[in-house]
Amino acid sequence: MKLFFDKPFQYSPSGEGDKKSLYVIKIGGNIIDDEQKLTDFLKQFAAIQSPLQGMVAKKILVHGGGKLATKLADDLGIPQQMVNGRRITNAETLKIVTMVYAGYINKNIVAQLQANHCNAIGLTGVDGNIITAHKRLLKNSPAGDGGGDGDYGFVGDIDSINTHLLHGLLEQNIAIVLAPITHNMQGQLLNTNADTIAQEIAKAFSLLYDVHLIYTFEKAGVLRDVEDDGSVLKLLTTKEYKELKDKQIIFAGMIPKLDNAFIALEMGVKKVIIGKAESLDDLLKGTSGTTIIL
Amino acid sequence: MKLFFDKPFQYSPSGEGDKKSLYVIKIGGNIIDDEQKLTDFLKQFAAIQSPLQGMVAKKILVHGGGKLATKLADDLGIPQQMVNGRRITNAETLKIVTMVYAGYINKNIVAQLQANHCNAIGLTGVDGNIITAHKRLLKNSPAGDGGGDGDYGFVGDIDSINTHLLHGLLEQNIAIVLAPITHNMQGQLLNTNADTIAQEIAKAFSLLYDVHLIYTFEKAGVLRDVEDDGSVLKLLTTKEYKELKDKQIIFAGMIPKLDNAFIALEMGVKKVIIGKAESLDDLLKGTSGTTIIL
Repeated sequence: MKLFFDKPFQYSPSGEGDKKSLYVIKIGGNIIDDEQKLTDFLKQFAAIQSPLQGMVAKKILVHGGGKLATKLADDLGIPQQMVNGRRITNAETLKIVTMVYAGYINKNIVAQLQANHCNAIGLTGVDGNIITAHKRLLKNSPAGDGGGDGDYGFVGDIDSINTHLLHGLLEQNIAIVLAPITHNMQGQLLNTNADTIAQEIAKAFSLLYDVHLIYTFEKAGVLRDVEDDGSVLKLLTTKEYKELKDKQIIFAGMIPKLDNAFIALEMGVKKVIIGKAESLDDLLKGTSGTTIIL
Repeated sequence: MKLFFDKPFQYSPSGEGDKKSLYVIKIGGNIIDDEQKLTDFLKQFAAIQSPLQGMVAKKILVHGGGKLATKLADDLGIPQQMVNGRRITNAETLKIVTMVYAGYINKNIVAQLQANHCNAIGLTGVDGNIITAHKRLLKNSPAGDGGGDGDYGFVGDIDSINTHLLHGLLEQNIAIVLAPITHNMQGQLLNTNADTIAQEIAKAFSLLYDVHLIYTFEKAGVLRDVEDDGSVLKLLTTKEYKELKDKQIIFAGMIPKLDNAFIALEMGVKKVIIGKAESLDDLLKGTSGTTIIL
């Protein structure tokens, strides 16, 4: 008898390991800003299949803002302060990003998913305390010498992810659509980087699911030649990454993205995939984009 | 033994009947537009006690929009079309109300509730298909002769309320904050009257809970003398309502509100209370406002 009880309640019909799969997908502004691309992407997102036959895939979509917030600020004559190329979230800008991200974009995405027969719920980190954060401290700001211009404003760095509520929703086969607004538990909303939210959500859920974290951006994946979309690396391991960094084939903006991907893998995320949102189907099949593994 | 099984799983420790209580509270623009009043109201909302000792009260807050949407439209130079005193929701206005109601107001309310140790989740009718609706038909519009100016635009009349998702959240002791945006299941968001949402939600939940529906507005309750806030009727029954209408003591805008209240009661809602949001505690205790019963 003992054999049967060694691993109770665990089976692996899909070869996917002992846990169900969860897809955490981050889309960027290039998709949000293009109505047709967004519609096409959401059709693919709605249709994601679970590797376990007959089961609805568990999925979380994290979206950023695109150009809509900047446009609205311009239309309202609200000047956008930048420090070292980064936008400062003053009170007026926070109001705008809350309206655009949590209101307009989030609810339109959810409505389109419902139209594609994918039951979805649109949330922010504030709802059900899903993501708590603190206002980024001056010393961590780019001009972090204590001077006032080193303040990012209402930008939040994540303190905790509460998986309980989302887990319950996922198990009801409801897809989650997350807008990048968090809060500090004291009534203050905070603007938080959507890439970071996707990564923290992926890590937090890796105890409960086999998490596939998919980052989409303008490029087809990690490129050997930044000018050639055909030079996508199909697979990238820690060892190869180090070599390519040493040869300066991977450089600049790609490095923090990939560093984060490897950290996520080390924290238990099963797979990170980087590529174009337009190719979501193929990214999940492994026929497009770069798959990153330890 | 038989006696014990006549009414299985039903008990009534509070004298409140066989079901748990659910508070459905609608707040209007006069509270939304006043930061201090909103803060005070949310403190009272967060602190609502369950009549069953030791249990967290189940509660749903439905909010309207206030003047913020109109102000934003003005700032953006978007003309507000009115027909017979009603705002027409054209595509630009829909975008604005979605941003303001579902984004700014909804998330700020939730953040304040969290700060008051009330776990809350902000949703619209789109999320989890909670409220489906259809675009109001021309023939039901005020200038309903088929002329183009009889079109309300993207205004939704409710088709269905899905209690399943909200019930699960309420049973986790999460308060629901609902913004008055619905959808037609085909990807179209719709602007829907918040009073109607509160009423339909209250009716739909009356099978599951003893529902207390609280409408708040500028007046202290149903008044004998519209000029005298001290002339509040403590209690209003169907019979008294008919008499007061006949004597034209109750008239004009109060009649549709009260007609709806009585319809809700006939559909199973336990109690309707009308009064000032500022007096929420007292409304619930019955020491302020008008309590309406059949």
